[in-house]
Amino acid sequence: MGESNETSKALQAICYQRGSLRLLDQRKLPLESVYLNIQDSKDGWNAIRDMVVRGAPAIAIAAALSLAVEIHSLEFKGAPADAADFIVKKLEFLVSSRPTAVNLSDAAMKLGDLVRKTSETTTEVKTVFKVFVEAAEAMLENDVADNKAIGSHGAIFLRKKSEGLDKLCVLTHCNTGSLATAGYGTALGVIRALHAGGYLDKAFCTETRPFNQGSRLTAYELVHDKIPATLVTDSAVAALMKSGSVNAVVVGADRIAANGDTANKIGTYSHALCAKHHGVQFYVAAPLTSIDLSISSGQKIVIEERSPKELLNSEGGLGKQVAASGIAVWNPAFDVTPASLITAIITEKGVITKSGDDVFDIKNFVESTRG
Amino acid sequence: MGESNETSKALQAICYQRGSLRLLDQRKLPLESVYLNIQDSKDGWNAIRDMVVRGAPAIAIAAALSLAVEIHSLEFKGAPADAADFIVKKLEFLVSSRPTAVNLSDAAMKLGDLVRKTSETTTEVKTVFKVFVEAAEAMLENDVADNKAIGSHGAIFLRKKSEGLDKLCVLTHCNTGSLATAGYGTALGVIRALHAGGYLDKAFCTETRPFNQGSRLTAYELVHDKIPATLVTDSAVAALMKSGSVNAVVVGADRIAANGDTANKIGTYSHALCAKHHGVQFYVAAPLTSIDLSISSGQKIVIEERSPKELLNSEGGLGKQVAASGIAVWNPAFDVTPASLITAIITEKGVITKSGDDVFDIKNFVESTRG
Repeated sequence: MGESNETSKALQAICYQRGSLRLLDQRKLPLESVYLNIQDSKDGWNAIRDMVVRGAPAIAIAAALSLAVEIHSLEFKGAPADAADFIVKKLEFLVSSRPTAVNLSDAAMKLGDLVRKTSETTTEVKTVFKVFVEAAEAMLENDVADNKAIGSHGAIFLRKKSEGLDKLCVLTHCNTGSLATAGYGTALGVIRALHAGGYLDKAFCTETRPFNQGSRLTAYELVHDKIPATLVTDSAVAALMKSGSVNAVVVGADRIAANGDTANKIGTYSHALCAKHHGVQFYVAAPLTSIDLSISSGQKIVIEERSPKELLNSEGGLGKQVAASGIAVWNPAFDVTPASLITAIITEKGVITKSGDDVFDIKNFVESTRG
Repeated sequence: MGESNETSKALQAICYQRGSLRLLDQRKLPLESVYLNIQDSKDGWNAIRDMVVRGAPAIAIAAALSLAVEIHSLEFKGAPADAADFIVKKLEFLVSSRPTAVNLSDAAMKLGDLVRKTSETTTEVKTVFKVFVEAAEAMLENDVADNKAIGSHGAIFLRKKSEGLDKLCVLTHCNTGSLATAGYGTALGVIRALHAGGYLDKAFCTETRPFNQGSRLTAYELVHDKIPATLVTDSAVAALMKSGSVNAVVVGADRIAANGDTANKIGTYSHALCAKHHGVQFYVAAPLTSIDLSISSGQKIVIEERSPKELLNSEGGLGKQVAASGIAVWNPAFDVTPASLITAIITEKGVITKSGDDVFDIKNFVESTRG
């Protein structure tokens, strides 16, 4: 399949058909669009370790699918319990590619439980394998379906909150699109849904210093999908809002506390403050799995620091030295935006709005979706 | 003179003694500290055109001094009027190196008037030359003296406004230091003065995207002067303030309107909004020449846009491609911070504070300094 074909379709970082997996090599973006063939869990491990694939949901799904491809054509000798053991060991190996990725270890645990349970109720090895393959495939399908639901709920809500405007200008931060998820994206999914419905005037993406996920990845997705879009520095967002060019901000979330405080890529809090000052709506778009009811507020979230090199050298640390030698650096990975600055939280099950006293009742919303 | 000597002294971008001028090649910073010998106005023209020297005051002074060096040892044949003509022609030539630099054309006009007037009252060519050389030298001395006065007024005022704190943490944006002026700096001069007095806990400098004047130049100055300092991305300023680590922000100014609205490097407005939200004092430090009483407010200031390449490529446009091909870019050179977000304006003649109704009476202040 030629590369011209790739770019005329919807952007997919994870291209899967039963027995075949190809991953878009994100290290080469935006200069080259190259897909790598993943034939087994060893290839999957390498792709995750080497940053071919990134984004928490995308990593977990790519890992599971790499193993699904491996066992698809496997001639396995042994009992169902041996097949379950085989899969669990491979999953443990895959987790070791990025030990701190919570989605990955969570998914491995769930998939492991599933195949063990299956092996106890069947006499057929191929049933164990089939259950695993179908579960891995469901992860891919469900993530895309959830993102499309987020996009749809978000687009409807943003339009409702912007009565009188035919089309909206929406700013986003970092990358939350097809390159960070199984497809479509969360915050970028809302922008895609607005565009698909003819309700998007223009998207703005920020550079997202220091690792440039906005200029490298989000800009790539927007250009790919022919969505009208403009790139700005993170520091130009305030001036852009003052000029009246932004109707809403939509960002993703690393983690959402029980009160709605949201940890997300560094700079999100700054954009939220600017939005508040200029009366611009500010939305968080994320799957329910990002909500952590065990954390009461953002104050409990520890801010992880990343390498000074991301600021000292160009290209987010990969290029040549830019900054003066000997300068100290503070490089937090994310910041926490308080719920008070957030208009609403967009999930795959609907939009969480505030009650009259300006408070999110997230626990109640989450429980109602389970009922 | 060896380079080890250079770095052990106070940082000087313009090293002048009568008959000798050396300019620090800022294109090579922060990786190399190389000084170029400037022997005449042709060398000066090249240095300005090729960005060896930058910053509005620094450019004007470097131009005048390059001509001062040229005529210092010149054997000139002709009458005083011919000498004045000679100087005026050279000044016109120097202005052509950066035709849009207002300080440079203003200075050229004033110096030209001075030598013409002198040539009408003397019979000695050497008197015309001497008057020019002394005027060029006075520009250098006055700029440093003004900056030291700004630093001193600012340090006293900041301390007064921060009673109860032994030492302050001060954040600055862009480069306003020895590398942008004849020496010492404006906003960075306030930080230098606080440090010299033992009242600085720590300086924070921002990257200052997209051209990285903060990480390249301000960080270099702070490391050179052994001032405790930490570099952050522009987008991390809000989170930094939330952590309680910043007591005051001091920035420079491209232009200050009659009501105190201040045009400065893009990102300044964003930092001012964050400061307001976190109750952090926000100061503008600039010489009186930056005040333009003919502009009633910031709304009258047109925002100049710069090349998209500064965002599309690394190293502020000089390095390799980073951003996705085909993405549109909005790259404003500066933004306007409204007077309502500014605590006070620090000048060489003292600090302009607000009256009871939260308004700066800048016209009155400027007139009182002339009285």
